[in-house]
Amino acid sequence: MSEKKPLTQLSTLGEFGLIRHLTKDIKLNNPSTIKGVGDDAAVLDYKDKKVLVSTDMLIEGVHFDLTYTPLKHLGYKSVATNASDIFAMNGTPRQITVSLALSNRFSLEAVEELYAGIYLACEHYGIDLVGGDTTSSKTGMCISITVIGEAEENDIVYRNTAKENDLICVSGDLGAAYMGLQLLEREKTVYNGNPEAQPDFTGYEYILERQLKPEARGDIIRLLKEKNIRPTAMMDISDGLSSEILHICHDSGVGCRIYEEKIPIDYQTYKMAEELNMNATVCALSGGEDYELLFTVPLKYLDTLTTLEDISIIGHTCKTEEGYTLVTRDRNEFELKAQGWTNFNTTEK
Amino acid sequence: MSEKKPLTQLSTLGEFGLIRHLTKDIKLNNPSTIKGVGDDAAVLDYKDKKVLVSTDMLIEGVHFDLTYTPLKHLGYKSVATNASDIFAMNGTPRQITVSLALSNRFSLEAVEELYAGIYLACEHYGIDLVGGDTTSSKTGMCISITVIGEAEENDIVYRNTAKENDLICVSGDLGAAYMGLQLLEREKTVYNGNPEAQPDFTGYEYILERQLKPEARGDIIRLLKEKNIRPTAMMDISDGLSSEILHICHDSGVGCRIYEEKIPIDYQTYKMAEELNMNATVCALSGGEDYELLFTVPLKYLDTLTTLEDISIIGHTCKTEEGYTLVTRDRNEFELKAQGWTNFNTTEK
Repeated sequence: MSEKKPLTQLSTLGEFGLIRHLTKDIKLNNPSTIKGVGDDAAVLDYKDKKVLVSTDMLIEGVHFDLTYTPLKHLGYKSVATNASDIFAMNGTPRQITVSLALSNRFSLEAVEELYAGIYLACEHYGIDLVGGDTTSSKTGMCISITVIGEAEENDIVYRNTAKENDLICVSGDLGAAYMGLQLLEREKTVYNGNPEAQPDFTGYEYILERQLKPEARGDIIRLLKEKNIRPTAMMDISDGLSSEILHICHDSGVGCRIYEEKIPIDYQTYKMAEELNMNATVCALSGGEDYELLFTVPLKYLDTLTTLEDISIIGHTCKTEEGYTLVTRDRNEFELKAQGWTNFNTTEK
Repeated sequence: MSEKKPLTQLSTLGEFGLIRHLTKDIKLNNPSTIKGVGDDAAVLDYKDKKVLVSTDMLIEGVHFDLTYTPLKHLGYKSVATNASDIFAMNGTPRQITVSLALSNRFSLEAVEELYAGIYLACEHYGIDLVGGDTTSSKTGMCISITVIGEAEENDIVYRNTAKENDLICVSGDLGAAYMGLQLLEREKTVYNGNPEAQPDFTGYEYILERQLKPEARGDIIRLLKEKNIRPTAMMDISDGLSSEILHICHDSGVGCRIYEEKIPIDYQTYKMAEELNMNATVCALSGGEDYELLFTVPLKYLDTLTTLEDISIIGHTCKTEEGYTLVTRDRNEFELKAQGWTNFNTTEK
C-alpha cells in the first residue's frame, strides 16, 4: 500500500492564507461583476435590471450529515439551492458570497473538496463567486450563502399574485430527495450497528442523487420564457409541496384543488416508500428539498403546457371560500395542511 | 419580589412563526427596496448606481462571548460592522439580509433582544432588512449578515489604488475596542473565580462601548465628500492598523512610513494598557475591531485635512523599495508587520 500524504492543518495557512488559497483561481464570467473577492465589498453593475437577493444558512447536524454527505456534493448543493431561489423569482443568478465556519477537525484538503463543489455549481449555473468570509467554529461546519441575481422588472414573478382558476404546475418529480435521505439514514443506522457492513444502493441511484446533488431548475425558467408563458405566481419547493402551495394560496388570497394522481412521483420514490412502509404521496407533500418549481399559470396556456415535458399540472386555484383541498385517488377530499418541517424541536447536545 | 414571566421556547413558534414574529413590524425606507422579506428573494432597484455587496459571519465563542455581550449590543454591532465595509468602499449601505442559527437554549425573548439591536442599527444607518434565514443549531449562535449598498461608479474607492507620496489617514482612535475586550475578559476571569464579585468599569466606559457597540464611520464618508476629498484608497480597520496598511500597500504597489506619535489613541486605551502591562501602540497596530477608516489622499489636501476633526494623518506612502516602516517616538525604525489575528489556532472542544 502506498503511504497516504498527511493532511494539511488549516492553522498552517491562517485566515487570509486560506481565503487566498481558495479564491486564487477564480475567473469572473458575468459582465455584471465589476470587482469580486479582494476588497471590502464586491462591486456589481446591474444597469437597468432589478437586483434579486436571497440567502440560506446550512448547519452541520441540522441540514447535513457528513457521515454520508461528500463535501463536494455539499458545496454543489449549497449553491444549487440558493440559485433555485432566484429562478423561483423568474430571474437569473449571477453572483454568490460564501461564508464558512469550520472547526480545526477539517483539513485544507476537506475545504478544497467543498470549494470544488461550490465552483462546479458556479460554473454550471454561470455564477461568479464574489466574496465571503472564512472563520473558525467551536464545533461543526456552518455555510451561509447569499445569491444575487437579476431580472427585468416585468419578468419578476412573486408568490402573492396567483389568480383564481389558474392552473397549478410543478416541474420534475417530488418526494425523491426525502426518500434518498431516509435511505441514507437507514444505511447509517446499519453501519453504526456493524461497521463492516457495506451499504447497497443499487436501484436507488436516482433518489440518492436527488438528495445529495439536486439541481436548480433554470431550464424550466428558460423553457417557459421560450414558450411565452409567464407564471402568475411561483416559488421553489424546498419545504414540501403542501407547505409551498399554501404559501402561494394564503399570500395570493386564493384556494386550491390538488389531485393526488397528478402529483409526479418517480418509480424509485414509490419503491423506497413501500420498502419503508411510508406513503409516497405524503413524502411528496411534506418531504422537502425537492428544489422543483411550483407555479400557477392562466388557464389559456393549458394546451401548450400539456406538450411540455417535465411539467405536470397538478390542480388549479379557486376561491378562498372553497378551501385548500387534496382530492385523493379514490375521490376522497382532505384539507391540505402544511407540514414543512420545524427544526426547533431538536434537543441541544 | 414580582414573579418572573416564564420565557417562551422557540419550538412553540416553529421556523416560519419565528420569522413572521421577528419581521412583522419591518418598515422599508429605501426607495431602492422594491420587495423585502416574504418571497424567495428580495427585489432591489439600484437604477444606474453600482451595487456593493459584503458579508460577515459571527460565531459564538469565536467572535463574541455571551457571558458579557448583551444580545442587543451584539445585534447592533453585527449590522454596524457590515455597514462599515460599504462605507470603506465610499458607498452607502441600503439593505441587509440576516441569517441566524440558534440552539434551543435561546428563548424567544433573547432573540427579540438580538433583533432589537439589529433594527436599531438599521434605523441608525438607514438600512432595510430585506431577507434572511432562521434555523436551529446544535450548540451556539451563528450570525451571518450580508449588506448591500450603492455608489456612483466614480465614487467607489478600492484598496489597490493608493499612489506614492499620498498621505495616510485614519478616523477616530485605535486600540480601544481591543482594550475593552481585555477588560471584559479580565472581569470574566474574576467572576469565574468568585461569582459574588461585581465588575467595576468606572473610568473605562469608552473602551467598553468601543468593544460592545462600535459605530461605522458613515459620518467620515460624508465629511470627505462635503470637503471634496476623494481618497485614492480606503478600507476599514477590522483586523488592526498594521494588517490593513499592508493590505493597501501590497495591493497598490507602494511602501509606507507610519509615525508612532501620530497614531490616535484614547486616554482610556493608554490607561488600560498600562494597567495590563501592555503597549498601547501595539494594541492600536494589532488589536482589531476598531471599524475606523484607513485611507490615503493626495498630498494637495494636507491643508484641508488638518482642519478636520476626528481625522489623523499618521504617515505617508512611498516607493515599495523604501519598505513598510514604523518610526517610533524615539526615532527608531521598524518594519511594519501584519498581526491581524488568526482564528484557526483555537482547539476544538
